[in-house]
Amino acid sequence: MNGLLGQLRAGLPAEALVTDPDVTASYAHDMASFCDAGTPAVVVLPRTVEQVQHVMRTATALRVPVVPQGARTGLSGAANASDGCIVLSLVKMDRILEISPVDRIAVVEPGVVNAVLSRAVNEHGLYYPPDPSSWEMCTIGGNIGTASGGLCCVKYGVTAEYVLGLEVVLADGRLLSTGRRTAKGVAGYDLTRLFVGSEGSLGIVVKAVLALKPQPPQQLVLAAEFPSAATACDAICRIMERGHTPSLLELMDRTTVQAVNKMANMGLPDTTEALLLAAFDTPDPSADLAAVAELCTAAGATDVVPAEDAAESEMLLQARRMSLTALETVKSATMIDDVCVPRSKLGAMLEGTAAVAEKYGLTIGVCAHAGDGNTHPVVCFDHTDADESRRARESFDEIMALGLELGGTITGEHGVGVLKKEWLARELGEVSVELHRGIKQAFDPLGLLNPGKVF
Amino acid sequence: MNGLLGQLRAGLPAEALVTDPDVTASYAHDMASFCDAGTPAVVVLPRTVEQVQHVMRTATALRVPVVPQGARTGLSGAANASDGCIVLSLVKMDRILEISPVDRIAVVEPGVVNAVLSRAVNEHGLYYPPDPSSWEMCTIGGNIGTASGGLCCVKYGVTAEYVLGLEVVLADGRLLSTGRRTAKGVAGYDLTRLFVGSEGSLGIVVKAVLALKPQPPQQLVLAAEFPSAATACDAICRIMERGHTPSLLELMDRTTVQAVNKMANMGLPDTTEALLLAAFDTPDPSADLAAVAELCTAAGATDVVPAEDAAESEMLLQARRMSLTALETVKSATMIDDVCVPRSKLGAMLEGTAAVAEKYGLTIGVCAHAGDGNTHPVVCFDHTDADESRRARESFDEIMALGLELGGTITGEHGVGVLKKEWLARELGEVSVELHRGIKQAFDPLGLLNPGKVF
Repeated sequence: MNGLLGQLRAGLPAEALVTDPDVTASYAHDMASFCDAGTPAVVVLPRTVEQVQHVMRTATALRVPVVPQGARTGLSGAANASDGCIVLSLVKMDRILEISPVDRIAVVEPGVVNAVLSRAVNEHGLYYPPDPSSWEMCTIGGNIGTASGGLCCVKYGVTAEYVLGLEVVLADGRLLSTGRRTAKGVAGYDLTRLFVGSEGSLGIVVKAVLALKPQPPQQLVLAAEFPSAATACDAICRIMERGHTPSLLELMDRTTVQAVNKMANMGLPDTTEALLLAAFDTPDPSADLAAVAELCTAAGATDVVPAEDAAESEMLLQARRMSLTALETVKSATMIDDVCVPRSKLGAMLEGTAAVAEKYGLTIGVCAHAGDGNTHPVVCFDHTDADESRRARESFDEIMALGLELGGTITGEHGVGVLKKEWLARELGEVSVELHRGIKQAFDPLGLLNPGKVF
Repeated sequence: MNGLLGQLRAGLPAEALVTDPDVTASYAHDMASFCDAGTPAVVVLPRTVEQVQHVMRTATALRVPVVPQGARTGLSGAANASDGCIVLSLVKMDRILEISPVDRIAVVEPGVVNAVLSRAVNEHGLYYPPDPSSWEMCTIGGNIGTASGGLCCVKYGVTAEYVLGLEVVLADGRLLSTGRRTAKGVAGYDLTRLFVGSEGSLGIVVKAVLALKPQPPQQLVLAAEFPSAATACDAICRIMERGHTPSLLELMDRTTVQAVNKMANMGLPDTTEALLLAAFDTPDPSADLAAVAELCTAAGATDVVPAEDAAESEMLLQARRMSLTALETVKSATMIDDVCVPRSKLGAMLEGTAAVAEKYGLTIGVCAHAGDGNTHPVVCFDHTDADESRRARESFDEIMALGLELGGTITGEHGVGVLKKEWLARELGEVSVELHRGIKQAFDPLGLLNPGKVF
């Protein structure tokens, strides 16, 4: 332990090392429930690539595991410390190094907060789409590690589609460049994408070249009330089948709507079984909005209300964004699932989730990136009640099983981390897991990077 | 050799095996110049996944190399046979298995021709964007192997962005599933993307789940004549900087324009130094087209002509599509380069290419996916003239060096294959090459898949 601190100090300024156990304890875990976390030996907050290389060389020399962290807003325990590890927090490497409107790229360090980048590129008329609900806090490095999604994905895709190139410090401290700063490029294997979503298990991202889009017009949101999840899902299928490209297509069930209203008095329609939000960000969205309103009505919507203006649109977005937080107030604890199914199976997924809630006698609120088939069933329970906690865990698992059965995945955007690693093998199969291990071996032969996560 | 044929026959119908040397010789190479090709021992044309598995099991048992092939329209020699290999042609596995307008996916076998898929999904109001110039011949499997681009990429991106999931037969015959048929999914490492662009060196793709877009309106094309490459590149930068999203932004230099006119009498403006084609496929492209026309004029365009209608737009597209073929008629042979630079460096790239042509006393025609910074300098030379051939090869290399110097890549969309494998290490660096070898080792420990390609 002293050897570790001594060696780390040799290449780091004093303020980059945190050893006070009260402080290091606060770096022990991310925002996931039900995930074990160990006690870190030390927290390191480097400011330069060389400092990260020093940390990794030290870790390799002394065989100490390293857990990389961003803002710890993750929901799968991927950033949780293991006992005796070095927590490598990248939050101090937070410089935006370049924004190029001609090349439509930004070059950033990993600790840049998503919203900070988003606002900075807006000033150049540009747009960085990936917008996880935690965008005001989460970092680009964390977004890359977990391959984050968000509300915009139905039109603009996920983080992976915006990462063009990376600089990565490997387990042994060597520096790797991947990808490019060009719009296209196919030289060699796609190592860039391999890092995206690898949850810090293959290397430490220290720089990223991100693709940007031109900033679209402010989106206009339409809210539609449905008498059931099934009718809302039917509307979603019709909207996509007809070739519309909404910039947002979100679903909140009654439990979610009521929780949001209770928390923030948003005036959402409290008695609706399913509230659908659809938006368009084209120069003239009126034709699309009218067509979508008609499709919603045809599918059984009881009320369809377009937002009056940008402010009302923004308010509806805020309501959707606070859904998970609001559901956390329903009971003392929550487990947030992240199953994604083909959108044609969304109705079956929601029906099945309701049946699971009934079977286990639990409240399960659902909000969903419905246009992507990505549901977040939130199991609300009293964590001091052992039996209810057990039922919560079982229902959570049953929801994942249902997702796989419907041709979906156990995680659309939150990742595997600790929370779902037992489920990963079930989704991937033996052959894939073996190849995963082969890749891990090629990048981190000593198994020092984020051990016990992913698989 | 008899052992090989005997074992292959045990699991394949007679018509799936081609051993006539005259016929097998015709499978020896793709469309790249200057790339060595060996003599295959046998050509296999399987129709089922099980047959592919049988081929790979046999190859592994007997340690025979396997070269997977699509339509052999590739331009880097990635599909060239090696001596004594099994050529595994996937062209008979050409079924479209599913098209889902609600899920916006197609599920296909690897031998489906790009244009066949494109037209089939059009009938459902859907659009499969990747459109290499060879789209009437090339296969989806080949597109995946080489991570193909095309004209649409400036708006819609490359093949990689449309591959959601794969079924792959590994070197030892085991079947691997990667990815998903959902819009989102982050379970485990992104093995799907690892296969895209891996040029058959990691496994044999036998099924693909592809993402589709709604079919956009027919695009309207505008043609602008410029007095120099520099002014045309300036216009391109202005167009992108102002936030326009053209569905096509292509450049043809004077040599290219004249070659196309000569081949097909397209009536393109023969005396123009650089012809820029820009298109928009939005419901009402008039405002964008007018703004782009103005930007072109401000950058120095001598004439700006919007296409009168869809037919004239299509004619301009055809002219651009035949550029490579037309340039092949300038002299007895060509070498087609594929350098991609940040679009802000496109002017420098074209200026440098002209200097290379002058230095070596060669004709180098350039057409470019200019909006992506992806240039195709085509070195035209007399292959019976040893000195000119040597100069062609040297100029080709010098163009790649220039691309790297400008922060670009040696290949934007054609791949590495045999043609550029000596250059790959120079672009990637030692650390990356070592990781490439580690990945190859994990997937193909005996090195049987497409040996001698990529790296």
